[in-house]
Amino acid sequence: MRFDLVIRNGTIATASDVFAADLGIKNGVIVQIGGAMDEAAESIDAAGKYVLPGGIDSHVHIAQPSGEGIVMADDFESGTRSALFGGNTMVLPFCLQEKGRPLREALKAYHALAEGNCYTDVSFHLIVSDPSEAVLGQELPALVEDGYTSFKVFMTYEDLRLSDAQILDTMDVARRTGALVMVHCENEDAIRYLIGRHEAEGTVAPRAHATTRPIAVEREATHRAVSLAEVADVPLVIVHVSNREAMEEIERARRRGRKVIGETCPQYLMLTADDLDGMDWEGAKFVCSPPPRDTASQDACWDGLERGVFDLFSSDHCPFRYDDPAGKLNPKGSRNFRHIPNGIPGVELRLPILFSEGVMKGRIDLPRFVALTATNQARTYGLYPQKGTIAVGADADIAIWDPSLTRTVRHADMHDGADYTPYEGAELTGWPTTVVLGGKIMLRDGTLTGTKADGSYRSRGRSQFATVPPKVGAGT
Amino acid sequence: MRFDLVIRNGTIATASDVFAADLGIKNGVIVQIGGAMDEAAESIDAAGKYVLPGGIDSHVHIAQPSGEGIVMADDFESGTRSALFGGNTMVLPFCLQEKGRPLREALKAYHALAEGNCYTDVSFHLIVSDPSEAVLGQELPALVEDGYTSFKVFMTYEDLRLSDAQILDTMDVARRTGALVMVHCENEDAIRYLIGRHEAEGTVAPRAHATTRPIAVEREATHRAVSLAEVADVPLVIVHVSNREAMEEIERARRRGRKVIGETCPQYLMLTADDLDGMDWEGAKFVCSPPPRDTASQDACWDGLERGVFDLFSSDHCPFRYDDPAGKLNPKGSRNFRHIPNGIPGVELRLPILFSEGVMKGRIDLPRFVALTATNQARTYGLYPQKGTIAVGADADIAIWDPSLTRTVRHADMHDGADYTPYEGAELTGWPTTVVLGGKIMLRDGTLTGTKADGSYRSRGRSQFATVPPKVGAGT
Amino acid sequence: MRFDLVIRNGTIATASDVFAADLGIKNGVIVQIGGAMDEAAESIDAAGKYVLPGGIDSHVHIAQPSGEGIVMADDFESGTRSALFGGNTMVLPFCLQEKGRPLREALKAYHALAEGNCYTDVSFHLIVSDPSEAVLGQELPALVEDGYTSFKVFMTYEDLRLSDAQILDTMDVARRTGALVMVHCENEDAIRYLIGRHEAEGTVAPRAHATTRPIAVEREATHRAVSLAEVADVPLVIVHVSNREAMEEIERARRRGRKVIGETCPQYLMLTADDLDGMDWEGAKFVCSPPPRDTASQDACWDGLERGVFDLFSSDHCPFRYDDPAGKLNPKGSRNFRHIPNGIPGVELRLPILFSEGVMKGRIDLPRFVALTATNQARTYGLYPQKGTIAVGADADIAIWDPSLTRTVRHADMHDGADYTPYEGAELTGWPTTVVLGGKIMLRDGTLTGTKADGSYRSRGRSQFATVPPKVGAGT
Amino acid sequence: MRFDLVIRNGTIATASDVFAADLGIKNGVIVQIGGAMDEAAESIDAAGKYVLPGGIDSHVHIAQPSGEGIVMADDFESGTRSALFGGNTMVLPFCLQEKGRPLREALKAYHALAEGNCYTDVSFHLIVSDPSEAVLGQELPALVEDGYTSFKVFMTYEDLRLSDAQILDTMDVARRTGALVMVHCENEDAIRYLIGRHEAEGTVAPRAHATTRPIAVEREATHRAVSLAEVADVPLVIVHVSNREAMEEIERARRRGRKVIGETCPQYLMLTADDLDGMDWEGAKFVCSPPPRDTASQDACWDGLERGVFDLFSSDHCPFRYDDPAGKLNPKGSRNFRHIPNGIPGVELRLPILFSEGVMKGRIDLPRFVALTATNQARTYGLYPQKGTIAVGADADIAIWDPSLTRTVRHADMHDGADYTPYEGAELTGWPTTVVLGGKIMLRDGTLTGTKADGSYRSRGRSQFATVPPKVGAGT
Repeated sequence: MRFDLVIRNGTIATASDVFAADLGIKNGVIVQIGGAMDEAAESIDAAGKYVLPGGIDSHVHIAQPSGEGIVMADDFESGTRSALFGGNTMVLPFCLQEKGRPLREALKAYHALAEGNCYTDVSFHLIVSDPSEAVLGQELPALVEDGYTSFKVFMTYEDLRLSDAQILDTMDVARRTGALVMVHCENEDAIRYLIGRHEAEGTVAPRAHATTRPIAVEREATHRAVSLAEVADVPLVIVHVSNREAMEEIERARRRGRKVIGETCPQYLMLTADDLDGMDWEGAKFVCSPPPRDTASQDACWDGLERGVFDLFSSDHCPFRYDDPAGKLNPKGSRNFRHIPNGIPGVELRLPILFSEGVMKGRIDLPRFVALTATNQARTYGLYPQKGTIAVGADADIAIWDPSLTRTVRHADMHDGADYTPYEGAELTGWPTTVVLGGKIMLRDGTLTGTKADGSYRSRGRSQFATVPPKVGAGT
Repeated sequence: MRFDLVIRNGTIATASDVFAADLGIKNGVIVQIGGAMDEAAESIDAAGKYVLPGGIDSHVHIAQPSGEGIVMADDFESGTRSALFGGNTMVLPFCLQEKGRPLREALKAYHALAEGNCYTDVSFHLIVSDPSEAVLGQELPALVEDGYTSFKVFMTYEDLRLSDAQILDTMDVARRTGALVMVHCENEDAIRYLIGRHEAEGTVAPRAHATTRPIAVEREATHRAVSLAEVADVPLVIVHVSNREAMEEIERARRRGRKVIGETCPQYLMLTADDLDGMDWEGAKFVCSPPPRDTASQDACWDGLERGVFDLFSSDHCPFRYDDPAGKLNPKGSRNFRHIPNGIPGVELRLPILFSEGVMKGRIDLPRFVALTATNQARTYGLYPQKGTIAVGADADIAIWDPSLTRTVRHADMHDGADYTPYEGAELTGWPTTVVLGGKIMLRDGTLTGTKADGSYRSRGRSQFATVPPKVGAGT
Repeated sequence: MRFDLVIRNGTIATASDVFAADLGIKNGVIVQIGGAMDEAAESIDAAGKYVLPGGIDSHVHIAQPSGEGIVMADDFESGTRSALFGGNTMVLPFCLQEKGRPLREALKAYHALAEGNCYTDVSFHLIVSDPSEAVLGQELPALVEDGYTSFKVFMTYEDLRLSDAQILDTMDVARRTGALVMVHCENEDAIRYLIGRHEAEGTVAPRAHATTRPIAVEREATHRAVSLAEVADVPLVIVHVSNREAMEEIERARRRGRKVIGETCPQYLMLTADDLDGMDWEGAKFVCSPPPRDTASQDACWDGLERGVFDLFSSDHCPFRYDDPAGKLNPKGSRNFRHIPNGIPGVELRLPILFSEGVMKGRIDLPRFVALTATNQARTYGLYPQKGTIAVGADADIAIWDPSLTRTVRHADMHDGADYTPYEGAELTGWPTTVVLGGKIMLRDGTLTGTKADGSYRSRGRSQFATVPPKVGAGT
Repeated sequence: MRFDLVIRNGTIATASDVFAADLGIKNGVIVQIGGAMDEAAESIDAAGKYVLPGGIDSHVHIAQPSGEGIVMADDFESGTRSALFGGNTMVLPFCLQEKGRPLREALKAYHALAEGNCYTDVSFHLIVSDPSEAVLGQELPALVEDGYTSFKVFMTYEDLRLSDAQILDTMDVARRTGALVMVHCENEDAIRYLIGRHEAEGTVAPRAHATTRPIAVEREATHRAVSLAEVADVPLVIVHVSNREAMEEIERARRRGRKVIGETCPQYLMLTADDLDGMDWEGAKFVCSPPPRDTASQDACWDGLERGVFDLFSSDHCPFRYDDPAGKLNPKGSRNFRHIPNGIPGVELRLPILFSEGVMKGRIDLPRFVALTATNQARTYGLYPQKGTIAVGADADIAIWDPSLTRTVRHADMHDGADYTPYEGAELTGWPTTVVLGGKIMLRDGTLTGTKADGSYRSRGRSQFATVPPKVGAGT
């Protein structure tokens, strides 16, 4: 066989195994692992390096309308470029339904933004903000058939939150169609109540973002979400879990027999609420929801990554510029934490952070890294086995990591559209240097070799968590 | 390349992936997955079948002295033959130290019994029954260096149980040498107390075996074992867990940050204490420790297999003949449950039971089956990555499963040395038909093609649970 | 001293003690325990009997508008007469705010109904159904000052349920005024969702009342309520808890340091969901919310009474006639469980049930009976130490119980306005035979001696659970 | 009636109630509460003061042989005098069986020491150190009949610890006779193991006492003890609980339906392991077992006192002199923590500490104080209703507390035989000033008025926790 690309001498890792073998790629697909691969159009020497499945980041916000005239700092071009440099070959941003409008309309616009502007493959979750009868009855079921197989619902944000009744109705669509529901768990009413008390006391600096969203508010919503899913009898993804109490709700639900998929993010490993205390409104740079907690919560999240409370490690990349009329510094002309847009960048550093702090420090092993960042992501969101692993027949989406490379994080070295990184100054060991997408080398030894025309939109199948017995020849 | 053996057209499964690919084997090792494999000395057509890592059964008793003149029903020849027919390529029986004697002496005898008599590879755990100063100070550390890297200690059986002090001393050797400790968790004193009360009331039928070993007795010992391991700061394997309360002790320990590996066995999925009630002393056929519980406990064990409370699914094969002067029927000439030897056969049906009841019924997926029966077994006991998976460089230990084959279990079809199976009459779907050991076809379409000279003793490395940061090129 | 009334030869019980002593009463108050009491206007011989504090039932519905034209079966006259025969000297019904109307208006009407029509003392909780700014800002704080120191909010019933924001606002009034909030915990949206699914399947018999209100729905709301109270930092009463999962939410909240008072009711000890299956729509007689569960839940509730998960045992008396145009049998002319009014009678049997099934069967002791039915009720709702115990200075509200009296429950023997009792046929041992209210003998040896003019409205102080350090001479 | 003693104008508290009333005493017994008491031989004016049941301290060590030639600092005279000044009217020290000798022998000697030397009433628990067949079969059952109704067993101390089998045998005597078993829960083998590691590292200062007895060691033994009690089916007292993990074992056991009584002590509220770090071997003054932990454990113990995890608050008074050849400073001539005798004084400050830190600071209310220190003590150990409460018919054992008195703790003001107090310098508000024993004023306004001949030995009945249905006229 003549291969299009051969990756030689590397150490391959999957979600279960680590082994030395060459990798043969043809027509964008992995065709051979090990054995003779003499003839190849192109080859990469991965000696001393890890050959991993390309990262899939199932939780990124790109070019998403954010209300109040605030513009998200990344479009598809900058967002996917940043993702690529961070070792990813696919991202799943959210397509947000405008209230009173059909989802198709938002999708059309979103596809137009993405088309021809992606350095990685992309697929879209749907944010259901207005579950009208038409949306629930016709549009969502049709969209599931079309490959939009995951919906996100919010329990917070005044303009996005759904009522329990609306969440149940949306879950019921998932029950009937095999779609998967993701939930942002924070109790909006409780937050509003605390904001009212804070404002009455004149407490409006960025730190108030954390104290108006205490753990109880996240724990409450988490338990409510898993209970609603229990009533509707559907699996559920709890995104961006920040602390042990919310983790316990996931574990309790599993002990009751519920299928609950847990996700955490870099900010809950690396930041704390103290970061919100920065001088000169610097704390605004760390405003995201749920807010970072404390070091005990960081330990809890590591524990959850290790023990399997979390199945997914995603970035929740949601970039805003700091020093901008419509950015974090001075939103709406007012210095009140309420107006700071919620979200921080992270798509480029998600994997280096987990690699350096997790794998290199011995908290998790390499198969667990692969599972959390690629394989489980693909399984959860209907991309497996085409994506998320290194196996014969899978897409040749590959990131080659140099575990000996140490770098200090500087935003100047990032590739996103924001003007800062919350991790400035962190020293991380282990970085992706070469990234292959569908057999094409997009990044080679740190140099961009692909173009924004190389990524493509991928329709998705059902999540694996709509469990069915395995069929021979068809994978699980 | 010219291959010694090629397995074509099958569906390969690892602990993370399921994919269609051919497998190329040379010099006893897997060398190529997928791609062209034209030249092969021998080939197997696995169309419509699963190609899985050969089962590793880390918990079997073979030719082990059982006290009171009772003879175990399997020697290495029958035991490994039965294992092979059950889809296994390796078993780890226990070498039992005789009190007052060095372990080396027992090992010498045990090696002599195994030598030339194995249809599968074998390696030995050490049962420490007499942790004298010499054993702890010199012999055990030297044996760990020699590849005997796991010790088992008992908290029950009058002649085997160790005191807490002795367990701690044994754990301390593990702490210093990187060995792994396995514990049989039942409180002997509590059992003796209950036996006393039962006998005082004249309750001596086989069912009394269950009521003298209630869940509280297992839960107590499980918590004690993990607490001693916490004091000594070592990882721990809790073998043959039978119920939810003991499972909760494992989960609680993990939440405290402890590394605890959990194991369950077929009897806790398939049998209940009611089976001990059989007429005409038939109940004796189901006497094992801990005893089977009830259907709620069965459900709990399934839950634990799915949720990861259990990492290992082993047989605890411990065969005795029923109808024998020194067997279960009439031990020591007396009809008192106390004298029924503890243990039942299971090495041949472990995998078919889990496959049929677990995979085919949708309770677990195929990667989880592989993890529980092969990969985790190898990782836990220092055999990985040489064994336990299908990867380039791994031993060509492979079982080919036909998921369309349904059979009713009959002891007449078994290959062990016992005269019954506790699962007589069960209808199971999915059976191993062909087994390859180190590249040699041992069983082909149900026909034995290998010999008892083909299996060999394998020295082992440290368990993976003595976590170290991954090194490139060396696997994890 | 010359006493108005002396109770001789009885065995007195308080929430901590049981002892033989005479009791001297003057001016409606207990003035002497033990010692000489020669001169008395009247005396009762309580030899062989228990002398207990009169029962306080803090959870009864009387003459409450029930929507849909349904008339509650008890007015103050029949409701308090029934309470008196059941060993009570005080009941606390709910005054329901009409939406869009001030609470004062409802109170005025309610007082008018009660005035001159009570056989026991009464005081009113407020049901907040419309927490407008005026209600929260002015009316409620003023009402607390006037002695209406407890509010009830509902998380279910379409016309009563409050949003989380409204609950928090109401809790905030409690925080600022020292009032106490009671919550009915069931998630209305989840119930509506399940009703929709049931109706779509044509499942509309009374049993559907239970399956549309599963435990998850109660557990969810319970956790939400305690979490909202955590956010607002107020103590909380969880009324009518029916099962172990909701109990666990109470216990978890307490372990987090929250003050949560738990209540259960006779229906959760005596009935199960199977009772809803009665032929000919008989199941409607057992429709109450939350619904009765199963025998495991009954055991859980007994466990909770014994272990202190529950502080209160109340009736949730909410009587409807069965065979009535606007009753349970054929509400709104339709045979659909949705239209069966929720609630069952219980004020007369609450105490005999707990006495017979609890005290006489050894599940709880007599001091615990007194605590659950009188002392804790008084402490919780700001009536202590004037009511709820037998102590010098307390109101002479006393029930004398004959523990040797066994009766079969027949509705014909009841004194309420309903036309059935859900406990028909139960055989109970231990009944109140004589009841004294403020020193007046209301019931003597089973004969009514008081009048409906004897009971009076009692303004209340703050709950004891607004903890303050004890002051000498002022009680705790 | 003419009273021997009347206590006027005070505020009486029981385990449930607080009320103002005079108290009339005759023949050593309370005969009247409230009402006219004109004629009295003697009277006390308790205006502005609390009139409480005299404290019962069920956990004190007096004149107990301590091995290694160490002499306990208190004999009955000094120990009970100290107790009296601390507001107690009864103490229950331990009579220690000498190994190989009958318990009767130890009792005879112990009675001889106590006879005529007690300022309070006394009764004895039995420490079973050698449960021989004769002891279990004949002696203990006979002693229970004679009123020695509680046994203590140790799981630690090389010379006292029992095996699980011995504990079960002792529990079985309790099961058959209605006696109550108390357990000191620490795993001796684990402690020995850790001592070995500490000594190997040369870590032998007093602080090592804490690090060789970590929480895991107490948690393990606690779970084991409740599990053994579950197997034997007996209630159990867990003495001197120091931390949340052990508390959780108690709570878990109760949720499994077990009757477990929990006790904590002043040292776990007031001291931490840091106190063991004192210079110049000062840390030895705080050596007791289990060791004090940290402030989180202190909070946990307060939580347990409030929530009812603990039923008893006792001193574990176990006094040794510090500056003595055979004391804590230089035991056995060696400066190794192993030789520091375990135990600290506390009988005099137990009540003032709980009153000042608990009642006065609002953590617990006065009825809870009475329950923890008197009523529950009496109920648990078979002294109720004769002792432990203020009720007609109870012994006139009374302590009058002045809640306005603030004193700084100085050992110079104490009345025990030790030469220091671990609480030196603590400022406490609320002290007992007058104590009445059986109607006799022993301490009046801080002046000793009784003699060491006034206290007497009291034989005890069964614990109330051998629950039986209440009988009229006989108390519960």
